[in-house]
Amino acid sequence: MFSKRAESMYHSPIRRYNPLSDKVRANGKIVLPLNIGQPDILTPGEFFDAIKDASTDRRTIAYTVSEGLPELRQAFSNFYKKVGLAYEVPDILVTTGGSEALLFTILTLADHGDNIIVFEPFYPNYGSLAKMAGVDLNPVMTKREDNFRMPGAEQIAKAINSKTKAILVTNPNNPTGVVLTKDEMDAVVEVAKQYNLYIIADEVYREFVYGDVEFISFASYTEFSDNVILCDSVSKRFSGCGVRIGCVASTNKEFMSQCLKMCQSRLSSPYIEQVGATALFNVDDSFIQEALVEYKSRRDVCAEVISTIPGLDFRTPDGAFYFIVKLPGINADDFTVWLLEEFDVDGKTIMLCPVGESYVNPQDGASEVRISYCGLSCDDLRTAMNILKEGIARYLEVVK
Amino acid sequence: MFSKRAESMYHSPIRRYNPLSDKVRANGKIVLPLNIGQPDILTPGEFFDAIKDASTDRRTIAYTVSEGLPELRQAFSNFYKKVGLAYEVPDILVTTGGSEALLFTILTLADHGDNIIVFEPFYPNYGSLAKMAGVDLNPVMTKREDNFRMPGAEQIAKAINSKTKAILVTNPNNPTGVVLTKDEMDAVVEVAKQYNLYIIADEVYREFVYGDVEFISFASYTEFSDNVILCDSVSKRFSGCGVRIGCVASTNKEFMSQCLKMCQSRLSSPYIEQVGATALFNVDDSFIQEALVEYKSRRDVCAEVISTIPGLDFRTPDGAFYFIVKLPGINADDFTVWLLEEFDVDGKTIMLCPVGESYVNPQDGASEVRISYCGLSCDDLRTAMNILKEGIARYLEVVK
Repeated sequence: MFSKRAESMYHSPIRRYNPLSDKVRANGKIVLPLNIGQPDILTPGEFFDAIKDASTDRRTIAYTVSEGLPELRQAFSNFYKKVGLAYEVPDILVTTGGSEALLFTILTLADHGDNIIVFEPFYPNYGSLAKMAGVDLNPVMTKREDNFRMPGAEQIAKAINSKTKAILVTNPNNPTGVVLTKDEMDAVVEVAKQYNLYIIADEVYREFVYGDVEFISFASYTEFSDNVILCDSVSKRFSGCGVRIGCVASTNKEFMSQCLKMCQSRLSSPYIEQVGATALFNVDDSFIQEALVEYKSRRDVCAEVISTIPGLDFRTPDGAFYFIVKLPGINADDFTVWLLEEFDVDGKTIMLCPVGESYVNPQDGASEVRISYCGLSCDDLRTAMNILKEGIARYLEVVK
Repeated sequence: MFSKRAESMYHSPIRRYNPLSDKVRANGKIVLPLNIGQPDILTPGEFFDAIKDASTDRRTIAYTVSEGLPELRQAFSNFYKKVGLAYEVPDILVTTGGSEALLFTILTLADHGDNIIVFEPFYPNYGSLAKMAGVDLNPVMTKREDNFRMPGAEQIAKAINSKTKAILVTNPNNPTGVVLTKDEMDAVVEVAKQYNLYIIADEVYREFVYGDVEFISFASYTEFSDNVILCDSVSKRFSGCGVRIGCVASTNKEFMSQCLKMCQSRLSSPYIEQVGATALFNVDDSFIQEALVEYKSRRDVCAEVISTIPGLDFRTPDGAFYFIVKLPGINADDFTVWLLEEFDVDGKTIMLCPVGESYVNPQDGASEVRISYCGLSCDDLRTAMNILKEGIARYLEVVK
């Protein structure tokens, strides 16, 4: 009736309980959202100033060039140079969010039936985007007992077959919070070189690294830069997820020419949001520094409470703003629904994100949830984690 | 090296001469653009007022729900009801432009190797979007000598095979300007019913109909509405192409549920432009009425001059804002480049859009160009058409 691709896709685990949550809220229960990577930090004033200026310039809101507004491409380029990556303006294609950057990259690199190496557990929308493209995800497991560290070159190479076109790496990782070491990255690059694969580097969380850990970009492997496709976004960096502006960056001119065809197929990204996004790159570095301090406190609050929950398997993340947590023998979807429908502490409950879809075989993650700590204050997070703790105890006692 | 799908795609014929045109302009030549469907009429003030208001509401620019802002879905629904189409809010998914509406619809209806009936000549990006999806376009020719009128049910049925999933119809048509009669639409619906196919109705030019011709929507076939997927956009209606807001509308609940998965894969459409687009639906009907008067004058100016060009084969369009013109034995791409590089009249030249890519086999349209009359004043269009006239004469004399 509909396409097999559509029917094989999942409704996003991050979003599919929204209707239920809305219903529960309408009945007066307070639902603390832990499901979505939606920061609550205000979008910088530079964004609002820019769109206000744009609003006084009454004109025809025309298509921009498909490559993106020249000043926005320049802003991306300047930003990369500041962090030591030599992307010039022609190396950048503006996209409507990091999602579009990923979709266009996959479409440019892989055909129906080809595959792309991903590391489980992965960002669930990788599955959706790959299915849209008819491309298979070829999973390599990172293990909870190894703190989700990357497997070595040999392990990665084992998964590669004649249909493999690229290795997709999220760094810092969503949902595991792992930040790759130089050795781990060397291993990926070694394999990519050996098999002449592209590396799709999803580095939208680049700034969100806590403690002594250092973030390194795959784009810093300059001798291999023509095989690296960087997918980026202003969403997390500037607390502007709804702006939907990202980019694809690569020094590979032929790749860029092919990928431009995808950009032309949708004509252009939205004009006003491109103007706003351009201004975001003028934001002072203190913005991200302050956000980092706040996120680290939030992470620590969560870790403090989570560590007291019996039977809960978790790792404190080094980067991004998620915990991936394994519930003690509890089905994550059932528990998420139960928390919304049946449970509360003083009129409050929490909304989790089950991450079965972070695995090619969702059963592998059936009892895992992702907890986002970017959208609630430390106080609310403490409350939320205590609700989680009491919820698990009650669920094990009453329901299971 | 790259995907076959990317390599088989074309750089948009509407946009691929932009770099050349920029170069020529930099050297001082004035280039009158006839290549792109970019209206020059100002975007209504309501849009700017709305984004100005949004700029004063300093907050976190968050993801919206993937379905689109509730008030924007409501605005689309109200608009449809006003024109007699009974789409309720749940029947509408906001998309980032009509392009995304088309892509998501194709992805939801057809798998790799499936096909969709299109009528040649078609909007070139249909080819790109279908290739992105791995779906084949299954062409049925409409003929210049028949004024590009639709073939009958029998002719359409002949093209259908076991892999055919839908019939994609552009009405009013880009690039031919044809507005379908009730009889022509009945024939499409008859075939779609007989073979249980979907009708993908691209009606983004719905308002742009000149003279006594009446526009009818496929969505008005209420008994067949579950098989009709409407793809729409605010771009042309409100002279806001750079807003990149459109929608998919259908009463088919299962289709909407499947298509929502595509929407969730890109999280949401941009927030600010959704706010602006919502306000566009408050624009008084006089806006479009005035635009229509202007476009009709422009069409008539073009027709007046074009009709004096020896050997040029053209039809005066009833709708949209394009002429499709067959040059007298001239290759359209070569001529487009020559006009930019080698020709001018008093320092001015024109930029055309070759439409080979409006045919599955581009050779079928190798000598055809699309002329857009939405972006220049009557005076400039008269100048442009005279440049075309002189250019053809000179090209036939000197070059060919």
